[in-house]
Amino acid sequence: MTLIANNRKQGCFITLEGSEGVGKSTNLAFVQQWLEKNGFQPLMTREPGGTPMAEEIRELLLTQRDEDVSEKAELLLMFAARAQHLDEKILPELARGRCVVSDRFTDATYAYQGYARGLNLDWIAQLEQLVQETVRPDLTILLDLSTDVARQRMNKRGTTDRFEQEQAQFFDRVRQGYLVRAKAEPERFAVIDASQALEQVQQDIADVLQRFFDQGD
Amino acid sequence: MTLIANNRKQGCFITLEGSEGVGKSTNLAFVQQWLEKNGFQPLMTREPGGTPMAEEIRELLLTQRDEDVSEKAELLLMFAARAQHLDEKILPELARGRCVVSDRFTDATYAYQGYARGLNLDWIAQLEQLVQETVRPDLTILLDLSTDVARQRMNKRGTTDRFEQEQAQFFDRVRQGYLVRAKAEPERFAVIDASQALEQVQQDIADVLQRFFDQGD
Repeated sequence: MTLIANNRKQGCFITLEGSEGVGKSTNLAFVQQWLEKNGFQPLMTREPGGTPMAEEIRELLLTQRDEDVSEKAELLLMFAARAQHLDEKILPELARGRCVVSDRFTDATYAYQGYARGLNLDWIAQLEQLVQETVRPDLTILLDLSTDVARQRMNKRGTTDRFEQEQAQFFDRVRQGYLVRAKAEPERFAVIDASQALEQVQQDIADVLQRFFDQGD
Repeated sequence: MTLIANNRKQGCFITLEGSEGVGKSTNLAFVQQWLEKNGFQPLMTREPGGTPMAEEIRELLLTQRDEDVSEKAELLLMFAARAQHLDEKILPELARGRCVVSDRFTDATYAYQGYARGLNLDWIAQLEQLVQETVRPDLTILLDLSTDVARQRMNKRGTTDRFEQEQAQFFDRVRQGYLVRAKAEPERFAVIDASQALEQVQQDIADVLQRFFDQGD
């Protein structure tokens, strides 16, 4: 069961998803280590952001402001950042055969702007088509955790951004949105129970990655 | 032929369009004066921009940067700024019965991103539908000028932004794009020959406004 990264003709596109407080940062670092140990040189990136311009859009989105933010403007900014990230970073790296791992991608837009904010899911699908055409993640690891536990973890952090300020109900809807997406595409999603001890979470992630690359061989 | 602004139940939405160097700023001031003289209290605004957040998006769009800007990102940023401008400023003012005059609107997106950059016009139409639903300008005044003359005027200004740096061919395509749009919607567009003496240009604009409000009575 040796993984031979260099034999893969195409890059792989892996996304890590989950609401605030589910342990994304820690587990992203684990995914990176696992890939490096197995001979890959993954490009680790994040959304919204991933290029200098896309990071400027991220700032614009996360800044707390007096002005109300139009829900449509928020949605379009997310996809503007994504277009920049895809066209200027992700797609060129995939074309070179590299593995790209993104902290969040379009599933987050469905979960946050669609299921949680209540924006029309058809709009999101239209924008996904416009921006991504046929590009979709090959594997999406969803860290799933009850909203209560996630918020307890989140509260231990310091400052909050415009999204983190939302109420518990909002994060319930984010979580449910993610689960609906995972159920609809079980071949792409791996749902990890993030309430487990970290060691077990990471064992589960390692198993998922192993199976993913075994299938790809 | 008295104009009675307060009798209009709905606000009016007027846009001024044209490429760089056609005299938009001078003539916007004239439109404002004309409206004020005729009893309106117009809200003068501009795109991209018009609200603090939309102005931040404008900055992001106009800044010259080392990073290539994805054409789709540019298009989505334009519409993100527009969504914010519409939802937080234009629509509330129109609902109050006010006249809104915008320095550029969606026709500029068709002309610049569509006809000049070559982005798919269907994408623009999709985004227009998503962001604006049924909202369209009531009157669009297009200042039309040959690209050569416009560029001579533009060169007299100092610094240039990311758009003003484009080549003459680009501005030819902008101009032609605007003219195609005007021909397709003659009832909404008034095309003004901006090569005339300023006095005549402004007489033409005054005639257009007079006719527009006479029809509306």
